[in-house]
Amino acid sequence: MDGSGAAPNCLDGVRVLDLSQFEAGPSCTEALAWLGAEVVKIENPKGGEPGRVLGTGPRPGADAYYFMIYNANKKSATVDLKSERGLQLVKEMAKRADVFVENFAPGAIERLGLGWEVLHALNPRLVYAQVKGFGEGSPYENNLAFDMIAQACGGTMAITGERDGRPCKPGPTLGDTGTGMLLAIGILGALYQRHATGKGRRLQIAMQDAQLQYTRSAFVQHARSGEPAMRNGAKSLAGGMAPAGIYPCKPGGPNDYVYVFTSPANPEHWQRLLRVIGREALIADPRFATREARGQHEAEIDQIVSDWTRGRDKHEAMRLIGGAGVPAGAVLDTGDLLGEPSFEKRGIIQTMQHPNGELRMPTFPVRFDGAPPPVKPAPLLGEHTTEVFGEWLGMSAADIEELRTEGVV
Amino acid sequence: MDGSGAAPNCLDGVRVLDLSQFEAGPSCTEALAWLGAEVVKIENPKGGEPGRVLGTGPRPGADAYYFMIYNANKKSATVDLKSERGLQLVKEMAKRADVFVENFAPGAIERLGLGWEVLHALNPRLVYAQVKGFGEGSPYENNLAFDMIAQACGGTMAITGERDGRPCKPGPTLGDTGTGMLLAIGILGALYQRHATGKGRRLQIAMQDAQLQYTRSAFVQHARSGEPAMRNGAKSLAGGMAPAGIYPCKPGGPNDYVYVFTSPANPEHWQRLLRVIGREALIADPRFATREARGQHEAEIDQIVSDWTRGRDKHEAMRLIGGAGVPAGAVLDTGDLLGEPSFEKRGIIQTMQHPNGELRMPTFPVRFDGAPPPVKPAPLLGEHTTEVFGEWLGMSAADIEELRTEGVV
Repeated sequence: MDGSGAAPNCLDGVRVLDLSQFEAGPSCTEALAWLGAEVVKIENPKGGEPGRVLGTGPRPGADAYYFMIYNANKKSATVDLKSERGLQLVKEMAKRADVFVENFAPGAIERLGLGWEVLHALNPRLVYAQVKGFGEGSPYENNLAFDMIAQACGGTMAITGERDGRPCKPGPTLGDTGTGMLLAIGILGALYQRHATGKGRRLQIAMQDAQLQYTRSAFVQHARSGEPAMRNGAKSLAGGMAPAGIYPCKPGGPNDYVYVFTSPANPEHWQRLLRVIGREALIADPRFATREARGQHEAEIDQIVSDWTRGRDKHEAMRLIGGAGVPAGAVLDTGDLLGEPSFEKRGIIQTMQHPNGELRMPTFPVRFDGAPPPVKPAPLLGEHTTEVFGEWLGMSAADIEELRTEGVV
Repeated sequence: MDGSGAAPNCLDGVRVLDLSQFEAGPSCTEALAWLGAEVVKIENPKGGEPGRVLGTGPRPGADAYYFMIYNANKKSATVDLKSERGLQLVKEMAKRADVFVENFAPGAIERLGLGWEVLHALNPRLVYAQVKGFGEGSPYENNLAFDMIAQACGGTMAITGERDGRPCKPGPTLGDTGTGMLLAIGILGALYQRHATGKGRRLQIAMQDAQLQYTRSAFVQHARSGEPAMRNGAKSLAGGMAPAGIYPCKPGGPNDYVYVFTSPANPEHWQRLLRVIGREALIADPRFATREARGQHEAEIDQIVSDWTRGRDKHEAMRLIGGAGVPAGAVLDTGDLLGEPSFEKRGIIQTMQHPNGELRMPTFPVRFDGAPPPVKPAPLLGEHTTEVFGEWLGMSAADIEELRTEGVV
């Protein structure tokens, strides 16, 4: 097996008109691109979408790594949305598109004259999809949102952090990519339905609302206890299980920990663990004989397990404990993941070959007939303007050159 | 607008044969159910899938809240997979299904004789989807995984927690639901493609691999710095921005914080914030005049902002700061979210009416033509056995009763 599989080609022939920016919208359209859709970013001729310059990239002044990672496998065409002719071009494209995606500030797309009613009238087959920070009808409907605002208001921070500490933001960008993935599900559902109905649908998702999809175990915890679910360090929200959590490994760096979990549904986990760490004698110890007893002696258990893990590095600890049939996982950071050869071999981490330089990055992790989608470069600004207007609208190179001279594209 | 919209019906007529359990698989098939597919859980007649008894539920001994929340809108049919006749029934169903999903331990489905080759030969149109903890070709291919193991090994914990503290597990169950959502995208892509090809595909996703999709901003940070991305409390991984983070509010409870973010791309945010908190005089202060200067005076800025936020509750702080055009969000917990009337009004939080009792829970947050999918009850064990075998296989009630007597269903 290697990572150079064929593209999934699931969405061959599907055209996505992509007016989105930053991450929530682009992560959604990138998933569609990885499935094989032709995704065309419509960008301002003067600099493109703001994500192009968020942070640094492989070359000073060139596209940022941030842009590269969220816009793989797409095309870029420039259009000045402030010009009447530019707006007309977008409408012409919308007539020929299957999907439209935008995540401008609340009300902006409607003020441009590209709202649902307008585009639906032009092309009833169009699936029209929008991302906003807060939902229609929310008291914060008109507020701005970024990933961290969505996470604060969506409940992810309250359940993340040490038990007695402040809320922490989960490192994953659930506010952005977490939202984008759910919208992709909606778009694909609507595309499937269109085969039967011939009609597109209007889809909306709010970044705040999207967080709830990923925190439902906290709602389960709330239903059980009648109290708001709280954060619990590296342990599960419910707590009361031992051993379960992260244990320190050598050489003692900030990420030198191994997660060990003994499932309450499987009492063998605890006995297997004791054998691995050479403490078989404790199998019969009444302090640790049942799940409840272990919960009451958590501090002693954590000491026993730590005494063993401190003598191993996290990889060895994972190999030995996991190999014995006890769920175990080293706490891996981006350096560990980029350095793990099997990720590259399996195509989960690939190298984007971009005119400005390389970027080693994860691809979409679903494997289709054995291989994940191949990563292709994020587009340079306007790289496909001529190609796209030619293919979608039948315009000649001379037509497009004229628009370019006028600053429309 | 209210929450009682029509079902999206995107997947009308799509039949999902669901052999999955716990959360990663069930969250995936639940998304398909919310889009309108007929999802039939195949469960052990003796107790059903193990998620049914994970924790407590509305009634002692009845289905757990955990099961209810991840199995809304599905059907349940019982089949003993250890009996030859039971396996035959599942194969007959696979001939009539559009999608097959399983997340048993590595190798288990193949040992049952229900592997990809077998079912693909019986029904070339079947989309065959599998979730495992680690990917084929990983050194940990045969290891067990749960949500927390996938998060440890997938890089989410290393980037979550206080800067100088231990790694924390993000509260959202990215290892499970995060994986399930990506698999749903793959399944929907394969279903779309089948219209053109008439053929199903083999899809696989590993819970470890899936985490990388949500942590790509950490890979961006690694590409910028050349070092592993580190956790940073409630702030962004890159840091260097002020004000940006959570600020304490009254009355000082564990979740009484408001997130305030001033974007480096928009210098107006800082000036607007100073006006809201009555510190206009500082607009001209050279210590805070540029992004870089503010980054150097982060401690002073955090003090200035906190002095104001401590005098307000988090809702008031969000309303005032957000209303002034500065991105702001209260840190909301499950209690706040369940108590916010607009969630119910908009249909984002609904009440599952279940024979054993109620559960207030989030529904799938994408709105289709204005409304999210309505929540229907999770099935009782075997509730639909007679209906499903009748409709899918044309069996009579007497046939099914005989199988029941024999313990096959």
